Amino acid sequence: MKFCSHCATEVEFRIPAGDNRQRYVCPSCDTIFYQNPRIVAGTLPFYYHDGEPQILLCKRAIEPRKGFWTLPAGFMENGETTEQAAERETREEALADVTVQSLFTMVSVPHIDQVHMFFLARMEKHQFGAGEETAEAKLFREQDIPWKEIAFPTVARTLKRFFEYKNDSAALARCHSSAILPSEALRKLEAEERERQKREAQKSTNGQTS
Amino acid sequence: MKFCSHCATEVEFRIPAGDNRQRYVCPSCDTIFYQNPRIVAGTLPFYYHDGEPQILLCKRAIEPRKGFWTLPAGFMENGETTEQAAERETREEALADVTVQSLFTMVSVPHIDQVHMFFLARMEKHQFGAGEETAEAKLFREQDIPWKEIAFPTVARTLKRFFEYKNDSAALARCHSSAILPSEALRKLEAEERERQKREAQKSTNGQTS
Repeated sequence: MKFCSHCATEVEFRIPAGDNRQRYVCPSCDTIFYQNPRIVAGTLPFYYHDGEPQILLCKRAIEPRKGFWTLPAGFMENGETTEQAAERETREEALADVTVQSLFTMVSVPHIDQVHMFFLARMEKHQFGAGEETAEAKLFREQDIPWKEIAFPTVARTLKRFFEYKNDSAALARCHSSAILPSEALRKLEAEERERQKREAQKSTNGQTS
Repeated sequence: MKFCSHCATEVEFRIPAGDNRQRYVCPSCDTIFYQNPRIVAGTLPFYYHDGEPQILLCKRAIEPRKGFWTLPAGFMENGETTEQAAERETREEALADVTVQSLFTMVSVPHIDQVHMFFLARMEKHQFGAGEETAEAKLFREQDIPWKEIAFPTVARTLKRFFEYKNDSAALARCHSSAILPSEALRKLEAEERERQKREAQKSTNGQTS
């Protein structure tokens, strides 16, 4: 942020009177520009088949994390409720009409100023498809979840919690709130990089011996 | 929003390519300015006395709703978790150090683009006071809650839910998600206005007969 969006004056970055944090402030019209975390709302859509829940995942057709699997979710918009946002994203990304049940996970991701929330959403009909931002939508049994190809840590955590509690209706009805800390995100990136290097090394070894 | 905050060009309000909502867009540097709901995070601090929970409320020293009672809460800041935000607001407004437990209510308020969330927070010590934005902090038994002087509908709803479920530990452990719709907010304002007029009429009647 360089200029005031009301009067185009160059803004200052300082602690306003009566505040204790640095903000962008316009020295001309005195507007203070607060910046706050954004909500990413989504669902964990599940469909019962042979008494076992299957989870609807979407393969991302766009960056970030193109080609990886995610639960349908996206930025909550002004003028809607958290439930409406979660249902809209499920309709847009997975072409599935769901009615959300309870809030299941809420994960703060402070280093990117986001709060991710996932609602349980039982699918009554076997009806879904790939929306514009989705390459493929597919139901997965627990044993088929592509754990190494999950797009975001908040999604992996939500899926893990679901299978951990799948036979505990009281735990499923609770909201599990937690945070992904920068150190954790970093460790995950490092582990992925090591994994990638190992695969590369493997490939070149295979190349040499074939 | 009139000007681009990156390059000071006058912005346009239109649907960007690949989107389905109107946004502020800079025709010069192509920045799209998304606007999203903000989170208000707070606690429901309760202190057990003689086996009964008492609730810590703060009388607001500032507008909006100056002079009305509220639970400690405020806008979540970038770089913190929802729990950290709720604990910080409780420290700042009620000078109380609490460790939050579970998320108890989440209330979407779409007509003002906010999501309010309140965490249960048991107070281990009888220690609190009035922070800078608070005129008075006080513990209330259920029968003493000043229902007609509660600052915000999301706070009233959270308090009601708490007393409704105070003997039901499973219900207390769940997150109760709901919304305050514009029509509801309007009805509340109208009811308050009728109440005010009734009091005014009463006052003038008393004035005439005394």
